[in-house]
Amino acid sequence: MIARKLAAEALGTGMLLIGVIGSGIMGETLAQGNTAVALLANAIATGCMLFAIITTLGPISGAHFNPAVTLAFALRGELDRNSALLYVLAQVAGGLLGVWATHLMFDLPILQQSQTMHRTGLAQWWSESLATFGLLFVIFGGLRSRPEAVPTLVALYITGAYWFTASTSFANPAVTLARAFSDTFAGIYPAHAPMFIVVQLATACIAVPLLRKLFDEIRAG
Amino acid sequence: MIARKLAAEALGTGMLLIGVIGSGIMGETLAQGNTAVALLANAIATGCMLFAIITTLGPISGAHFNPAVTLAFALRGELDRNSALLYVLAQVAGGLLGVWATHLMFDLPILQQSQTMHRTGLAQWWSESLATFGLLFVIFGGLRSRPEAVPTLVALYITGAYWFTASTSFANPAVTLARAFSDTFAGIYPAHAPMFIVVQLATACIAVPLLRKLFDEIRAG
Amino acid sequence: MIARKLAAEALGTGMLLIGVIGSGIMGETLAQGNTAVALLANAIATGCMLFAIITTLGPISGAHFNPAVTLAFALRGELDRNSALLYVLAQVAGGLLGVWATHLMFDLPILQQSQTMHRTGLAQWWSESLATFGLLFVIFGGLRSRPEAVPTLVALYITGAYWFTASTSFANPAVTLARAFSDTFAGIYPAHAPMFIVVQLATACIAVPLLRKLFDEIRAG
Amino acid sequence: MIARKLAAEALGTGMLLIGVIGSGIMGETLAQGNTAVALLANAIATGCMLFAIITTLGPISGAHFNPAVTLAFALRGELDRNSALLYVLAQVAGGLLGVWATHLMFDLPILQQSQTMHRTGLAQWWSESLATFGLLFVIFGGLRSRPEAVPTLVALYITGAYWFTASTSFANPAVTLARAFSDTFAGIYPAHAPMFIVVQLATACIAVPLLRKLFDEIRAG
Repeated sequence: MIARKLAAEALGTGMLLIGVIGSGIMGETLAQGNTAVALLANAIATGCMLFAIITTLGPISGAHFNPAVTLAFALRGELDRNSALLYVLAQVAGGLLGVWATHLMFDLPILQQSQTMHRTGLAQWWSESLATFGLLFVIFGGLRSRPEAVPTLVALYITGAYWFTASTSFANPAVTLARAFSDTFAGIYPAHAPMFIVVQLATACIAVPLLRKLFDEIRAG
Repeated sequence: MIARKLAAEALGTGMLLIGVIGSGIMGETLAQGNTAVALLANAIATGCMLFAIITTLGPISGAHFNPAVTLAFALRGELDRNSALLYVLAQVAGGLLGVWATHLMFDLPILQQSQTMHRTGLAQWWSESLATFGLLFVIFGGLRSRPEAVPTLVALYITGAYWFTASTSFANPAVTLARAFSDTFAGIYPAHAPMFIVVQLATACIAVPLLRKLFDEIRAG
Repeated sequence: MIARKLAAEALGTGMLLIGVIGSGIMGETLAQGNTAVALLANAIATGCMLFAIITTLGPISGAHFNPAVTLAFALRGELDRNSALLYVLAQVAGGLLGVWATHLMFDLPILQQSQTMHRTGLAQWWSESLATFGLLFVIFGGLRSRPEAVPTLVALYITGAYWFTASTSFANPAVTLARAFSDTFAGIYPAHAPMFIVVQLATACIAVPLLRKLFDEIRAG
Repeated sequence: MIARKLAAEALGTGMLLIGVIGSGIMGETLAQGNTAVALLANAIATGCMLFAIITTLGPISGAHFNPAVTLAFALRGELDRNSALLYVLAQVAGGLLGVWATHLMFDLPILQQSQTMHRTGLAQWWSESLATFGLLFVIFGGLRSRPEAVPTLVALYITGAYWFTASTSFANPAVTLARAFSDTFAGIYPAHAPMFIVVQLATACIAVPLLRKLFDEIRAG
């Protein structure tokens, strides 16, 4: 059973990266320098892909596609440590394969390294922290109040968060790592990725108890 | 129990302001002067955030995030006066914190005062009155006809109302006040805020009996 | 009971026109001549409004807001002739009031006459015929296959039809008439309105038996 | 009964082509050379139409509108060979009629041949393969996990895939063929169409067993 779950996590994360990187390339190529139009397409396409993969793969693996989400489930005791580690490996591998599959589609060199330099500094880290908190907020809040709405919640939240956070909401260590390997619209300079990942994971550690306090007694209330 | 409700109102209003102010800043920054593209992103991001916070926090506090909505529930006798006052305080505090959290994300001075001067005059007030009436219309109409659709109704109504009202539909006294504290795309000159708030609250007083007449006998009909 | 239904039809059609005309004005004002961006906002805002008014007012009046739809229900024998006539009057009155309320919001002269001259000729009439057929198709198809999806079906269909028909899909005699009274983005030269209305109503007459043949035995099938 | 199914397949595919071709023409006409805005409108309008036709015609014919989807159902043994052939003929005929109906709306010569030359080469074929795999993934995954969400899944997947695949996701042999007959925004040079179709059908053959392995034991698991 774990093999199927890992396949789902790898496939879903790969498809997520296709959505993020592919629409970023297409948007930047077509938008003639109007970055707002490129980001709008990027945000909408990412949301569409998220809805698709969470709805279809949710029943198999839970549809994390994100080590910060996997960490949160592990901290809640809903996923054992070994499975969590394997999930993360599957997500990282799937994410990288997704980036490379996208480069192939757009006739770009497969192996790249991002030169996008502005994704660093306190303001960006604060953005990533809020972005990650918000993502866990909609997941665990949605699981409490309306579980069937979680795919829509995550998709719309991320579509919005491309705009309302200054970092465009990576909010996902596997996605952050994979985006370091693409010198395209959605890239992040490799040396800036680790701090994003640290912030995302640290935020998950802080968010889990807070969100439990906020949401976990709704029905009991 | 009231503490949890107030936390939900403050958190939700804060997140709403992050959605409104953050996407406004990002849109204006990227849109190269094409205000329509900026407003499109602003409207979509705000709708996404509204869907997220109403779906997740609705079961806790009712997900008002808006003193005009709280006033309407109080006028209908569905919320006692003390709770209503506390709700409003939580909304105002949450809204301000949301604005400041956003300024921090975008590396802007925390404390600001809007210089946006065009949000005043009869046409703007008429816009705010229609905007607020429409918001209460979808909330109370939706609660009657299809309660589970209320998050979608509010999110889509506001996304549209950014465009079909001349004031871009503040329709919320806590949001109006908070936006006076941001000299960015979504700001409002502080001296113009009070009249917006008066119109919003007055419209709530008028809308409650009208909407009751229109909707409250649907099932009995 | 009919009074409440007529109030719902007038109010809903008025709100529909606010959505159409208001977002057209705002879009054209902000888009700096990029008509595609203006039409995108116009289409999205109209869809948002349609979802809101059909969901909330559907249980009261059936949420026609459109004489071609009312005609179709009458032809199917699901609405008597007198009620149908009153529905149409309410829609026309509501539509005009909606246009005027919008002009007031945008500080424009209340009474206007459109000078938009290109909405005529065979290609445009063919567009209106397809647009109206498609609208009735989603309504009667949706009522058969998934009634609770009708608000979404109509909203998304019209949002798309702004783009995939050459006339931007008026598909509604009350809306066509009202738009003749607005010299703004969504206007239609008054002398061109009657032929649009004839095409819309004629299409309804043709569509009703065709759609009955296609859809009305699904469950029996 | 098969006659009604074939009518549904022809009508639905025709409407799909109206959505694709019509919004492409409108987008390119209005976007003043900003192809990103044109593609955004094209993608959104296509998604809207897909939701409309799959929701309404699904209960009649299954709402394939796509020979690759019909092939997949045949390979799974859920559609007999004769019906499958008739489905494909209906889809091809409907698609062509849809293109011609659209040209008539936009006052263009009915019979055209696309001169769009860039839709060829390995990268484009790889794009079409991923696009088709993804489409079958959301259909068969959705049918397993949440059948009522399939119209939304397909609509959103294709809206996103316009952006995240380099070929803008034709993913449909009937649509590919029909688009060869339109020298407009969404066209494809006729000599390049056959290879697209081969890739789409070959991908369906590969995807069916893979997706069965991934999804078909969810409930048994």
